[in-house]
Amino acid sequence: MTHAPIPGYHYDDPARPASPVSTGELEQLAAATLFTDADAAALKVAGEVLADQVEQILDVWYGFVGSHGHLLAYFSTPEGTPIGEYLGAVRRRFGQWITDTCTRPYDARWLAQQEEIALRHTAERKNATDGARSVPHVPLRYLIAFIHPITATMRPFLAAKGHPEAEVEAMHQAWFKAVTLQVALWSRPYANAAW
Amino acid sequence: MTHAPIPGYHYDDPARPASPVSTGELEQLAAATLFTDADAAALKVAGEVLADQVEQILDVWYGFVGSHGHLLAYFSTPEGTPIGEYLGAVRRRFGQWITDTCTRPYDARWLAQQEEIALRHTAERKNATDGARSVPHVPLRYLIAFIHPITATMRPFLAAKGHPEAEVEAMHQAWFKAVTLQVALWSRPYANAAW
Ligand code: HEM
Ligand code: HEM
Repeated sequence: MTHAPIPGYHYDDPARPASPVSTGELEQLAAATLFTDADAAALKVAGEVLADQVEQILDVWYGFVGSHGHLLAYFSTPEGTPIGEYLGAVRRRFGQWITDTCTRPYDARWLAQQEEIALRHTAERKNATDGARSVPHVPLRYLIAFIHPITATMRPFLAAKGHPEAEVEAMHQAWFKAVTLQVALWSRPYANAAW
Repeated sequence: MTHAPIPGYHYDDPARPASPVSTGELEQLAAATLFTDADAAALKVAGEVLADQVEQILDVWYGFVGSHGHLLAYFSTPEGTPIGEYLGAVRRRFGQWITDTCTRPYDARWLAQQEEIALRHTAERKNATDGARSVPHVPLRYLIAFIHPITATMRPFLAAKGHPEAEVEAMHQAWFKAVTLQVALWSRPYANAAW
């Protein structure tokens, strides 16, 4: 399948700078979330299960953000007006992230992408990709808080293709670990030396 | 029931300084984890379910930390020798934290306790309570990573008293939210202005 390129998405750009996080640090962090090869395998299946449901998942997540003024604020102007173009541009990359989380190997290139996503939530790089006139950063506490909704809301989508309950549960646990692992990586530029 | 006081545990000390986090900020953060009154009610039941299982839960968690050198390091001397007294002293407060998470109202006093637990993981206050000669801080990334194991390992204990599956699931989701919420709060001194 060929897709139109997604503006601002440069996963496969060989010129992308390496993450300051080493693959050794990633391994130790993954162990702390209990992530194993079995989870990587379960995510592969999840990638197939979710492939044609991405837009519906994004509808749920955008509905959640859109219904909370204090969250929608991060996609809005400093005066509080939601920026439709910004919401739309991020949405495409967010959809691709679901696929990447399930299908990409968690290697040095994946780490480089995690660092980029991290920085795009911070004052260093938020708004730059889309030229958005929005508030300067997403507070770290909300990134961590979202581990719950981004995990919990995924279960019905993982169950939607009729897989046996045990397999759905394995996919869901793998997804939970993958989200936790990524938010832990994204906290790096917020905590610097204490990361 | 009367218990011997736990060294270093000062939840009910009226002289304790207030958290820099307001109850308004807590409400917004809790909303981001989807935490509601129904979760508070489910945690009350969980508190009863878990009351006589705390030591077994701690056995699982300490077993997990103890079996990973890169995690046990934070309970060890800078040279890498685990400090038994330190592990034991923290264990008692960790057990009390399970109870507090289920039974305490999430009010200003609870916020003050969260700030104290946060600081005890950072260079500002780690080791001070127990006079331990250990490494200076717990890296933020591991605090976040532990959201998964601290959530996932809890399920069998919540199911151990024969509650209907739907009620076990409600308790487990409430626990997941409560852990996520607290780690989000504990990230405050790590991120400072970007929190
Ligand atoms: C588990 C938590 C979260 C996940 C998985 C997540 C995921 C993502 C992804 C995949 C992107 C696109 C990155 C790219 O450009 O390729 C993104 C960007 C963005 N996210 Fe998050 N996010 C999370 C938490 C939050 C929260 C809590 C907010 C605030 C309500 C937020 C607001 C934003 C904004 C405003 C952007 C655009 C940043 C820019 O200007 O480039 N995110 N997020
Ligand atoms: C969800 C994640 C975590 C939870 C729920 C948690 C919970 C707690 C609690 C309740 C205490 C006792 C606080 C008190 O003194 O009253 C504590 C202290 C401590 N924790 Fe954590 N913790 C988490 C992550 C970690 C990680 C990843 C490590 C490192 C492997 C760690 C190492 C420690 C240490 C060394 C102390 C003692 C700090 C001191 O010197 O006072 N914790 N933790």
